[in-house]
Amino acid sequence: MGVTELIIVLALLQYLFFGVLVGRARTSCGVVAPAVTGDPVFERHYRVQMNTLELLVIFLPAVWIASAYIAPLWIAVLGALYLIGRFLYLRGYVRAAEKRSLGFGLSALPILILLAIDLFGVLRLLFAS
Amino acid sequence: MGVTELIIVLALLQYLFFGVLVGRARTSCGVVAPAVTGDPVFERHYRVQMNTLELLVIFLPAVWIASAYIAPLWIAVLGALYLIGRFLYLRGYVRAAEKRSLGFGLSALPILILLAIDLFGVLRLLFAS
Amino acid sequence: MGVTELIIVLALLQYLFFGVLVGRARTSCGVVAPAVTGDPVFERHYRVQMNTLELLVIFLPAVWIASAYIAPLWIAVLGALYLIGRFLYLRGYVRAAEKRSLGFGLSALPILILLAIDLFGVLRLLFAS
Repeated sequence: MGVTELIIVLALLQYLFFGVLVGRARTSCGVVAPAVTGDPVFERHYRVQMNTLELLVIFLPAVWIASAYIAPLWIAVLGALYLIGRFLYLRGYVRAAEKRSLGFGLSALPILILLAIDLFGVLRLLFAS
Repeated sequence: MGVTELIIVLALLQYLFFGVLVGRARTSCGVVAPAVTGDPVFERHYRVQMNTLELLVIFLPAVWIASAYIAPLWIAVLGALYLIGRFLYLRGYVRAAEKRSLGFGLSALPILILLAIDLFGVLRLLFAS
Repeated sequence: MGVTELIIVLALLQYLFFGVLVGRARTSCGVVAPAVTGDPVFERHYRVQMNTLELLVIFLPAVWIASAYIAPLWIAVLGALYLIGRFLYLRGYVRAAEKRSLGFGLSALPILILLAIDLFGVLRLLFAS
């Protein structure tokens, strides 16, 4: 499970990094807690963190379950695609909201593939047993 | 673990579906990113996704841990209750905010039961060892 | 895995409790769904829940992976620190947004330590195999 664990830890560190950027944007944009709106630059950073949270909650269990069905190499490829996609999402979104699509698609695609692998794998397991 | 994995994958797919509905509501309601407010129909869809995220983060570990303590049949029953409850929550909430209570209760109940099973199971494990 | 599971279940119960407080604040502050803004007391309660969600998504996999690398005693110590830190975060934040720092730091610190343990552990595993 080494490769899967590494992908999971890297995804957690990336998400933590996005959270740090939100904290910095809060200070630099002058958005006082508990507010999370009021400045478009802050809001874009915050949406990057929130959208990554939304995907991470799917990605982590999906990659973990898939690791029982596919080879570590494929876990690494799909995991790397997710991580790169998320960085492109960050880079695009903080520039302009319209530039978030490529990164979003690139990080959503491996999640869809992992879910398909999970569903196919678990259904085969249940029907074979 | 086949049944537990199936429940987890179905819960992830359901949550993904709720996210797709938010994306569609964003377009149809004309809410431009990064905003997540401004249109009540969009906000209700967004709250369905957010509340499901809030519950999913509890449900997934809770059902996983419970699978070590109770039979797959009970996992299936509690999981089905959660999934049905969430669909009723979606259907009620997008119609009117007041109509979200039944679905919320129906999806929160199996989570409370799972947490009780987890706590009882793990405490017995620790005191027996 | 008894200790790790106990920490996970306690973290889930604590998060559930924070969610109950948000529900109560919604009623007492008169914030009508789907709104999540409009009253500073409600917003601070809501931010406690959201920030705990943001950390929980990191904490749960991090503590689970770390349980393969460090002794249960250390899992218990780091887990207790997280739980206490989160309660201080709640207590501070609901009083005033400025009073949230101590609790935040105290709950973020064990997460950083767990992630370092995870990364070190998994890299050693991959290079040793």
